[in-house]
Amino acid sequence: MRASVLHAARQVALEERALPHLDADQVLVKISAVGICGSDVHYFHEGRIGDFIVEAPMILGHESAGVIAAVGADVDPARIGSRVSIEPQRPRANSRETLEGNYNLDPHMEFYATPPIDGAFAEYAVIQSHFAHDVPDSVSDEAAALIEPLSVGIATARKAEFTAGSRVLIAGAGPIGVIIAQVARAYGALEVIVSDLSASRREQALRFGATRVLDPREEDVSTLGVDAFIDASGAAAAVTSGIRAVRPAGRVVLVGLGSPEMTLPVSVIQNNELIVTGIFRYTNTWPLAIDLVAAGKIDLDGLVTGQYGLAEVETALEASTQESALKTVIYPAR
Amino acid sequence: MRASVLHAARQVALEERALPHLDADQVLVKISAVGICGSDVHYFHEGRIGDFIVEAPMILGHESAGVIAAVGADVDPARIGSRVSIEPQRPRANSRETLEGNYNLDPHMEFYATPPIDGAFAEYAVIQSHFAHDVPDSVSDEAAALIEPLSVGIATARKAEFTAGSRVLIAGAGPIGVIIAQVARAYGALEVIVSDLSASRREQALRFGATRVLDPREEDVSTLGVDAFIDASGAAAAVTSGIRAVRPAGRVVLVGLGSPEMTLPVSVIQNNELIVTGIFRYTNTWPLAIDLVAAGKIDLDGLVTGQYGLAEVETALEASTQESALKTVIYPAR
Amino acid sequence: MRASVLHAARQVALEERALPHLDADQVLVKISAVGICGSDVHYFHEGRIGDFIVEAPMILGHESAGVIAAVGADVDPARIGSRVSIEPQRPRANSRETLEGNYNLDPHMEFYATPPIDGAFAEYAVIQSHFAHDVPDSVSDEAAALIEPLSVGIATARKAEFTAGSRVLIAGAGPIGVIIAQVARAYGALEVIVSDLSASRREQALRFGATRVLDPREEDVSTLGVDAFIDASGAAAAVTSGIRAVRPAGRVVLVGLGSPEMTLPVSVIQNNELIVTGIFRYTNTWPLAIDLVAAGKIDLDGLVTGQYGLAEVETALEASTQESALKTVIYPAR
Amino acid sequence: MRASVLHAARQVALEERALPHLDADQVLVKISAVGICGSDVHYFHEGRIGDFIVEAPMILGHESAGVIAAVGADVDPARIGSRVSIEPQRPRANSRETLEGNYNLDPHMEFYATPPIDGAFAEYAVIQSHFAHDVPDSVSDEAAALIEPLSVGIATARKAEFTAGSRVLIAGAGPIGVIIAQVARAYGALEVIVSDLSASRREQALRFGATRVLDPREEDVSTLGVDAFIDASGAAAAVTSGIRAVRPAGRVVLVGLGSPEMTLPVSVIQNNELIVTGIFRYTNTWPLAIDLVAAGKIDLDGLVTGQYGLAEVETALEASTQESALKTVIYPAR
Repeated sequence: MRASVLHAARQVALEERALPHLDADQVLVKISAVGICGSDVHYFHEGRIGDFIVEAPMILGHESAGVIAAVGADVDPARIGSRVSIEPQRPRANSRETLEGNYNLDPHMEFYATPPIDGAFAEYAVIQSHFAHDVPDSVSDEAAALIEPLSVGIATARKAEFTAGSRVLIAGAGPIGVIIAQVARAYGALEVIVSDLSASRREQALRFGATRVLDPREEDVSTLGVDAFIDASGAAAAVTSGIRAVRPAGRVVLVGLGSPEMTLPVSVIQNNELIVTGIFRYTNTWPLAIDLVAAGKIDLDGLVTGQYGLAEVETALEASTQESALKTVIYPAR
Repeated sequence: MRASVLHAARQVALEERALPHLDADQVLVKISAVGICGSDVHYFHEGRIGDFIVEAPMILGHESAGVIAAVGADVDPARIGSRVSIEPQRPRANSRETLEGNYNLDPHMEFYATPPIDGAFAEYAVIQSHFAHDVPDSVSDEAAALIEPLSVGIATARKAEFTAGSRVLIAGAGPIGVIIAQVARAYGALEVIVSDLSASRREQALRFGATRVLDPREEDVSTLGVDAFIDASGAAAAVTSGIRAVRPAGRVVLVGLGSPEMTLPVSVIQNNELIVTGIFRYTNTWPLAIDLVAAGKIDLDGLVTGQYGLAEVETALEASTQESALKTVIYPAR
Repeated sequence: MRASVLHAARQVALEERALPHLDADQVLVKISAVGICGSDVHYFHEGRIGDFIVEAPMILGHESAGVIAAVGADVDPARIGSRVSIEPQRPRANSRETLEGNYNLDPHMEFYATPPIDGAFAEYAVIQSHFAHDVPDSVSDEAAALIEPLSVGIATARKAEFTAGSRVLIAGAGPIGVIIAQVARAYGALEVIVSDLSASRREQALRFGATRVLDPREEDVSTLGVDAFIDASGAAAAVTSGIRAVRPAGRVVLVGLGSPEMTLPVSVIQNNELIVTGIFRYTNTWPLAIDLVAAGKIDLDGLVTGQYGLAEVETALEASTQESALKTVIYPAR
Repeated sequence: MRASVLHAARQVALEERALPHLDADQVLVKISAVGICGSDVHYFHEGRIGDFIVEAPMILGHESAGVIAAVGADVDPARIGSRVSIEPQRPRANSRETLEGNYNLDPHMEFYATPPIDGAFAEYAVIQSHFAHDVPDSVSDEAAALIEPLSVGIATARKAEFTAGSRVLIAGAGPIGVIIAQVARAYGALEVIVSDLSASRREQALRFGATRVLDPREEDVSTLGVDAFIDASGAAAAVTSGIRAVRPAGRVVLVGLGSPEMTLPVSVIQNNELIVTGIFRYTNTWPLAIDLVAAGKIDLDGLVTGQYGLAEVETALEASTQESALKTVIYPAR
């Protein structure tokens, strides 16, 4: 098969590779679409993210969808031909975390495009059968791939306890920020305030769920008294001011990846008994994510701002960092 | 009545004062014992805590107990003569926070010994009748006063979700640390690890609930994998290392008052989906606290390391800061 | 003032009465609209509901709205003239239940139109100021009155844990059933199945939130596997079959008032670890309810199927029991 | 191997059988001790429990412990020789329920001694390696076997939300009732009231955690106002009166297996917003159960009132139904 392989920082090459090995409980998926995530760009630019270092050639891409082309020995062959969205993780079945329903926190997780596990910028990829989730025909290939970032939004909603009538502040109008804005609305939030330094990104947010946008340099958020603050920016200044924007007993969810250490207003957390937490991927989000898209509650197709073939991965990675970009999609089968 | 009045930083004087006004729903309590809290010492030394500034003469002391001497117009006179522990707060009944069961977070709270509200270093104090909680004869005057810091421990336990079998790390073996250690045991925790720089304080912790103590300079806590980390030190280094000591999906409760801003390992909070929160006083803790003491599950009497009369408040405040001190008690009636 | 007074079963008379006494923390509301609830009809027909017996003349009506005409000594006079929806309960501020945030469960509650407390089928009624909730001009008088049954729906949603993507079965397409259906949608439910014996009521439900309706005599609900079953019928057969319709670890909320004892399939509750509970009025629902109506998420105006003056209460009570009726409204000021 | 095989109601025979097949992820355990559960007795007497019918010869027994004698291909051979307590269930790894942390509710569960799955009244049994939980030497063989009913108690504690200071009513002083009483104490409950018709069983309960016992024919429990009521009797009268014993917003957990349908006081559940639920086995209880026993918080050894060899299973089953019996243990290796 053809695959786009990252050899080291800024070294991506289109290569022929053997098909991945198919375990008994897995399916082989012919990839139709793969979204580019900020982490793909980061691995491309730096060759690492924190302690995860690309030490051997690796295939990037973990927001993917396709059609089941073959099944392992223990999987019903009737699945062949199914259009699926891939949940790109392989937790152990028997860890404490998995048994408690937090399989995302299994310390021995194997995750797509996280060294040394290959991702989906390739013609084919394998995944456990139950993590190849069927999608209805009404969900496009692109949307099926973007179920992955939508899952980040749903995981955020659960931690933030979005509910009917919620008032939410989201810092950062990038792809994750606008997805979370849409998710907040799907959970019944009535006020979804998105802050971003970029006027064009703020404009964009209003098309995807925000009820109001603001420039944090011009407006003080500390009097908002929102139920939840979500950081989707990774910027320390946004986190600090966002924490001050939350009502007593409200929630703060840190989604954006910024500096591993940040100076936080601890006395505000204490005096208001805020709940501060973060998310690390997701568990049990795919069925809901697919349902929300199929029901028209979330628009993923509209997020696509760039489309590329497998030979253009490097160009696509660069394109995805432009201010006007939301989601850039690779089509390995084209 | 006689009262010990703080006029400004380091200026305390024993004075004659009029009895406080008794509202219809209040009781007048003849104070038998008052514990000294770190906040009393802080007000004495600095004349302020953060934005709370002593601008007019104020009576310190909020860990208090006594006997009901008189009742307001709407209170059953049969309460006169009852031994009570005082919950030293007056939230509004109608704030959103109170109606939702978080009366400690009412932004218009009036709290003993927080400017400009008088506390209990005096012969008498007033409190709403339902916050003068009856104590059985088996609970001493000192223990009745120290129900207040025990309430801090119970509020912590609830946020930390202590339960049977919990493994807990507590930073700081001061009075609050050792109370939380005891509370953890009362909730069924099997492992209660207390860290402190002081060998004598570590020794003390072993007498009050700790199953193990450690010197954070000599032992790395990051491999403990505890269910909950409680900071009762206010030290940034303790908070940072404590956060690394928690298992995935575990809890961090910040109780100690240190710098209003701290640099925290945000990536650890995110990657492990830790819940980080703090406590601000307590709600609905007195009945349980009294029950636990009456049942012999918590030893408060053993915490008393100094005893003083109302004329000796300044000496007592200084004494309470010594390393060997746990709780120093004032006896206004002696 | 004029008031419609219930003297005994089926004996209602329009009378002149003195204005109710106005306490210092209360407001006097000139009533604009009052919805009729099933409990009003029940008191009218039977003179009692369970242990609550009409032993002295009493004014019915607890779904009410109006304009503040006067305020008690402790209330800001600026409130006079405000359009308000009345939360018709007076819990004690100091009960355990109130302090824990469950003021609806205060055993000494005084509630409108529950003997011996007067309700709002009158020109004026009094309520504590903080339970006279401001409504914006975009909310009609009728909707302001019907915030009360909407609050029942919100209380149900919280117990049932409605959330984005929920699949819900509601038994009973009466006014409460269709309000709950709308509330479920506002919380993000994607599938709202309403069952009713009446074809016309099923038809109605489709206009108010139901995504699907069914006749329980013709369709077996036990294979639905819904996340939550809500009984809004009070019928034992509906409750029994509804419990069988819920997925493992799902929820059952009993809202309808039927027989005080019912035979339930306990083994199903056990084997599926279902959570079964009920609701008793509501706490902290008014602000959300008003926001949802103002935002157009819930249609209350469309529920009004009958409109009567204060002299027509008896006719109105009878009219409200017809199969085609949803909400019947009394206008005391007309 | 030798095994005690149930052929039909009241037909048990000691037989030679082939060793069970050992899958790659399983271990073969040489059984040291097996407790008898009421369900074993029920299968023996009736040949069925509800829809579960013994249609082919089956080995009873699911409360078991032993020593690992062999391991499957994927299991670390270092486990051979380990003393283990068996968690006797085999859920699928990929069901919705398992992935959400409720593996006990997996509808395709295979469970020991539930037709057609063999149990542990045999010299050997197999189980997935991670469900063969290591026990320390301080835990006896009998206690290691009885970790299973202790797990029922822990599952109950979680649903009932036992915590420090809880006041609990338990109906039924049989083995499960007294285990739950001990568990309640380990969770910090201060008042554990056990009701039973039998004076000798009540006496027994006082030795195992009860702080008070009562005869339900002589004492009205409806004024107790407990935080939680646990039915461990399966008797409808006990359930009905127990529900009336709970404070507003309290909890009811139905553990005892009685009639599949019961008449419950629904209006009490509604008016007090009680949470009523049941338990179906357990998830993630073994590690805590073992810790509690090893720490001396729970006494399982003291529950053993009968000891038998594999040839005496029929006698043992009968003995276990006597009023004085708590737990009867089979020793297959003797």
